[in-house]
Amino acid sequence: MSRFLHNKYAALTAYTPGEQPQDKQYIKLNTNESPFPPTQAVVLAAGEAAARAHLYCDPDVRLLRRKAAEVFEVGVDNVLAFNGSDEVLYFIFAAFGQQGIAFPDISYGFYPVFAKANGVEAKVIPLTRDLRIDPDDYLDLGMCIVIANPNAPTGICLALDDIERIVASNRSHVVAVDEAYIDFGGDSALPLLKKFDNLLIIRTLSKSHSLAGARIGFGIGAKDIMDDLDLLRCCVNPYNVSAMGQAAALQALQENDLNLKRCRQIARIREHTAQTMKNMGFEVTPSLANFLFAKHSQVTGEALYAGLREKGILVRWFSTPRIRDHIRVTVGSHQQMEMFLSAARDILEDR
Amino acid sequence: MSRFLHNKYAALTAYTPGEQPQDKQYIKLNTNESPFPPTQAVVLAAGEAAARAHLYCDPDVRLLRRKAAEVFEVGVDNVLAFNGSDEVLYFIFAAFGQQGIAFPDISYGFYPVFAKANGVEAKVIPLTRDLRIDPDDYLDLGMCIVIANPNAPTGICLALDDIERIVASNRSHVVAVDEAYIDFGGDSALPLLKKFDNLLIIRTLSKSHSLAGARIGFGIGAKDIMDDLDLLRCCVNPYNVSAMGQAAALQALQENDLNLKRCRQIARIREHTAQTMKNMGFEVTPSLANFLFAKHSQVTGEALYAGLREKGILVRWFSTPRIRDHIRVTVGSHQQMEMFLSAARDILEDR
Repeated sequence: MSRFLHNKYAALTAYTPGEQPQDKQYIKLNTNESPFPPTQAVVLAAGEAAARAHLYCDPDVRLLRRKAAEVFEVGVDNVLAFNGSDEVLYFIFAAFGQQGIAFPDISYGFYPVFAKANGVEAKVIPLTRDLRIDPDDYLDLGMCIVIANPNAPTGICLALDDIERIVASNRSHVVAVDEAYIDFGGDSALPLLKKFDNLLIIRTLSKSHSLAGARIGFGIGAKDIMDDLDLLRCCVNPYNVSAMGQAAALQALQENDLNLKRCRQIARIREHTAQTMKNMGFEVTPSLANFLFAKHSQVTGEALYAGLREKGILVRWFSTPRIRDHIRVTVGSHQQMEMFLSAARDILEDR
Repeated sequence: MSRFLHNKYAALTAYTPGEQPQDKQYIKLNTNESPFPPTQAVVLAAGEAAARAHLYCDPDVRLLRRKAAEVFEVGVDNVLAFNGSDEVLYFIFAAFGQQGIAFPDISYGFYPVFAKANGVEAKVIPLTRDLRIDPDDYLDLGMCIVIANPNAPTGICLALDDIERIVASNRSHVVAVDEAYIDFGGDSALPLLKKFDNLLIIRTLSKSHSLAGARIGFGIGAKDIMDDLDLLRCCVNPYNVSAMGQAAALQALQENDLNLKRCRQIARIREHTAQTMKNMGFEVTPSLANFLFAKHSQVTGEALYAGLREKGILVRWFSTPRIRDHIRVTVGSHQQMEMFLSAARDILEDR
């Protein structure tokens, strides 16, 4: 920290993203990336955009937003594009946190950081003992709510009815549903947008559309809410989505069917892997995301993480007390999961 | 505005970037883009990165920062990469504005917006009557200072001695020098970094390196200051620079000599255009940037802007009282400037 830093940031601690080691080749099952590379058409679109990158990108992101509106079945005024969903989440905490923001104790680890960075009071609501969100805990809260659905790192998904109950009982506040992983099996809250003007849905193309490196997130909701988010966007960085990102994302949404098919394929691999892990003695949460969250009575989460890393397989381990026995394993290709399972088997046998 | 928006943002007005019309082809001389498209090698690098974009980009931006450090002749710990220089400017206003931030009344129009968005008191210091920054106005200010050098939209550049005097007399505060246009003729303050730990330099590849659409900015300064900015970066968006942006920027810096040669070429076109405009009766500020700032006694800035637009040429006009007689004209290719000059001649003759 320098002697110049505003003291409101003195106690701030950054979010630590999953490792992205550049030194050697790992089987990366730690940041929920897709095992499918972008299609040739996406690569071409990005290259064509790069050839015109001496010009600014469209600050209104019109072509991409129009396509996204079609895919999400909303109006173009109901969608904004961001430099990854982290950017829109940051703006949500800034814009709608005046009375505080509620979120689960075990969820995307960035939420408390966004709260602190914006000087927003965080109401942290514990998950149930079996690591579920209890919708009753989120009724009539009198403040903005942010829920990841499916939740991370558990992968457990709330039913649409539960989301609706939460949104309906908090009409004076924004209820933001972070659907980063929804395409892997959960029911999206998008249809609820017709009924509620306090619902805000967050999407990303990072996982479901093989574009983590392109940095594309969306905020979807009532035009009034979009206007607020757009105001902040344009007060921070109006050219927030690069030309190559816009082009790649547009093409990926034009190939939406293919991407959703790939998501279903990953979901099948997830189910197969989960079953195998259960047979090996793992306790596995019922995940509807592209990752599995599991623990084993014979070996700590940290030891599993370290053992797998030694074998060239990266998974995510969180030191948070309630979940330090768990590891989170991204669902990759069949082959990657076989290698993970075989390595896990070795670790268990070595004990 | 929705009923949910934090009231601290109620009076906020967004920055309006220059028009980026997508409807018809204009000769775009309104947003200071380079007339040179990215090289084939840059396009290839971006495409290769897109092919791997199912993986996250490096959140530490290591390869690009290492190359940038080499180009800027600083250590890798003294450089951070951002999603365009707007992003780092936003963080500077957030991080270093506790005692207020001073900047000129006529400068990059985004500075007052960054101040308001961060709840920072802005000390707006008028330019002299001939639209210059008087360094004496910036001595011992007791607050953070942001100066664009060359200044926008005048293009007028302070000498290095003047920058040094300002930095030296404000050792307890960050002096940020926004060098977005420095490669077109001014003297960079980079060598002063050896002497001062309160100097922070902002660079962008948007103009000088033909990468406006790729969104690449840099903050350069003492490690302590970089740590502050990195803390904010990682509390907002740790994957802030896309994979394609990182790759394109790395290649553009590997071709730094070519890009600087292009900048010199643009500077020559600027001088030729400025002389021709003076011969036509324009009053032209002595710009060292890739734009010209000019007024003509026979026609208002607004009429010039509108007349040129009608002829398919976009320039920038600001309604700000002190400069509403002026237009800002990006220096494009020889051919583009000939078309601009010919259109301006027609407008003057028509009166």
